[in-house]
Amino acid sequence: MSEVVNNKQIVLKDYIGAGFPKESDLITRVSKINLSVAEGSNGVVVKNLYLSCDPYMRMRMTKTQGSYFESFTPHQPITGLGVARVLDSKNQKFKKGDLVWGMTGWEEYSHITNADGLFKIEHSDVPLSYYTGLLGMPGMTAYSGFYEVCAPKKAEYVYISAASGAVGQLVGQFAKLLGCYVVGSAGSKEKVNLLKNKFGFDEAFNYKEEEDLVAALKRYFPDGIDIYFENVGGKMLDAVLVNMRPHGRVAVCGMISQYNLEKPEGVHNLTSIIAKRLRIQGFLVSEYYHLYPKFLEMVLPYIKEGKINYVEDTAEGLESAPAALIGLFSGRNIGKQVVVVARE
Amino acid sequence: MSEVVNNKQIVLKDYIGAGFPKESDLITRVSKINLSVAEGSNGVVVKNLYLSCDPYMRMRMTKTQGSYFESFTPHQPITGLGVARVLDSKNQKFKKGDLVWGMTGWEEYSHITNADGLFKIEHSDVPLSYYTGLLGMPGMTAYSGFYEVCAPKKAEYVYISAASGAVGQLVGQFAKLLGCYVVGSAGSKEKVNLLKNKFGFDEAFNYKEEEDLVAALKRYFPDGIDIYFENVGGKMLDAVLVNMRPHGRVAVCGMISQYNLEKPEGVHNLTSIIAKRLRIQGFLVSEYYHLYPKFLEMVLPYIKEGKINYVEDTAEGLESAPAALIGLFSGRNIGKQVVVVARE
Repeated sequence: MSEVVNNKQIVLKDYIGAGFPKESDLITRVSKINLSVAEGSNGVVVKNLYLSCDPYMRMRMTKTQGSYFESFTPHQPITGLGVARVLDSKNQKFKKGDLVWGMTGWEEYSHITNADGLFKIEHSDVPLSYYTGLLGMPGMTAYSGFYEVCAPKKAEYVYISAASGAVGQLVGQFAKLLGCYVVGSAGSKEKVNLLKNKFGFDEAFNYKEEEDLVAALKRYFPDGIDIYFENVGGKMLDAVLVNMRPHGRVAVCGMISQYNLEKPEGVHNLTSIIAKRLRIQGFLVSEYYHLYPKFLEMVLPYIKEGKINYVEDTAEGLESAPAALIGLFSGRNIGKQVVVVARE
Repeated sequence: MSEVVNNKQIVLKDYIGAGFPKESDLITRVSKINLSVAEGSNGVVVKNLYLSCDPYMRMRMTKTQGSYFESFTPHQPITGLGVARVLDSKNQKFKKGDLVWGMTGWEEYSHITNADGLFKIEHSDVPLSYYTGLLGMPGMTAYSGFYEVCAPKKAEYVYISAASGAVGQLVGQFAKLLGCYVVGSAGSKEKVNLLKNKFGFDEAFNYKEEEDLVAALKRYFPDGIDIYFENVGGKMLDAVLVNMRPHGRVAVCGMISQYNLEKPEGVHNLTSIIAKRLRIQGFLVSEYYHLYPKFLEMVLPYIKEGKINYVEDTAEGLESAPAALIGLFSGRNIGKQVVVVARE
């Protein structure tokens, strides 16, 4: 009954400390896997199709204690979000042949014991890879962060950093659909063009070309910023704080500029919080998944009507996964970074 | 009809830059004042009784542009909150003999043209000086900051910095009355004793005696902090951030440690905002005065039943006002700093 096959895997060599991760921190190896779920388990066995590269994974490469993000286990395949096909199931929610998205391993096939956390893919008339992004965790992050945390109103001034990333590109388009004025920043000319020409941002700029971020923001927001969707942290946050308008809101989604530093940069302009009565709020998408059906109801028609564009940067093959993940931290990717393990 | 009298005044010598203000930045002089309100005005003339020394006044000593706090005018009496007796009125809200509190001048007598901003004192069976503190702006600051911004729940862990000040001492007592665990910090043994023995805080510590603020907070909050009432900023905020619990709230009332610095200190631990899903919110009491009647309804019985204690540091005479104000920034005062101009 049981079929044992080769299983290519990406494993963490060892925990890393501060600094940028390297491709060599991840090792490709071949292991064996039994494609049947053991009796007594309520898990599933899946064939992985698409894997998602996300900034939070950097934190899991470091040994942490008491952190929200559980560290990876050295010498084991790293885990992350992905799209997969169920090959065998002892879980009543899923049957053989189902498409799912959720937490899986960076390998060709995975045993998922905690299958209750997986989402069944009901709509497959869109690219399946979208479930690593627009229709998955990043999409829900953009949705919950913008609508639930930012409390946006029509015609407000919205600024998004790392705006061409998986989350940023969607926040900007949600904000435009609501009737906001939207400016994004990114780290290359190509990304800036994408923001303006593909995603419909009102303005966009390359932060690497700006010597004075405070002045740059003042140029794009002469009347100040109502909503800042924070993906970057550090100097960028500092420059934003002095440009915020009274009662402005900062949704803190991530601080990618800080993840590789030994000690995070100091942010100096926090007294702005008082006089401007700012609200700075962190959030994690994991607390908003009860809104997923509502989100799909809004976003699926937008996709089909062409009202939302979505750009992916696709790496082909599991072997390309380490470079794809590491590239996130130098901003090499353009759009959502996905790894194609198999197209079936 | 008009009576002209001598009027002692405290005037700002000139705008100051960064650094601690000095007594010599304020000058005492004698001017003349007509004790009648001019025809066509809807102002009042008052005799000032008590003047309030508040940290935000530091910012008004510097020339600022576009700040929420309007700068003082050099060579003119500085202004601040105080308690006064109406001597003459052309404003329909007030009549001769009324007691009021609100924005007045640092002088014996003041013409107040914007009298609509004054509050009439209806309850004079409590010490009148309380209207510069417990029953005035600091009281409303504590009330709105704690109940409206912090969204406190019974049994939560509450930390207050600058806890023996006008606002801090009240926040701590409100939190105790709600059934929270309350710890405060202050800058001397005497203040720490006050917090524990007079205001009923569960614990208190002298931050000047702590080499490692992160460790100090961990000692008092082994399970972390739910609510931080922020009066200090800088290093203290940094230490608090790593000690916050998930879904913790930081009400940013003030950052007194930063007001005299050329460049504010950097705060490094802001990534805590994400994983812990913190809400950091600034507020200004001026947006909550519609709650003043509700506040009085709660707090007046507490005072009469002895459930709230209140400590003032009283400077006698207008001549003592410059030293009293400057002393705030070295923490010389114990409790709310008040200047008695006249006891009538």
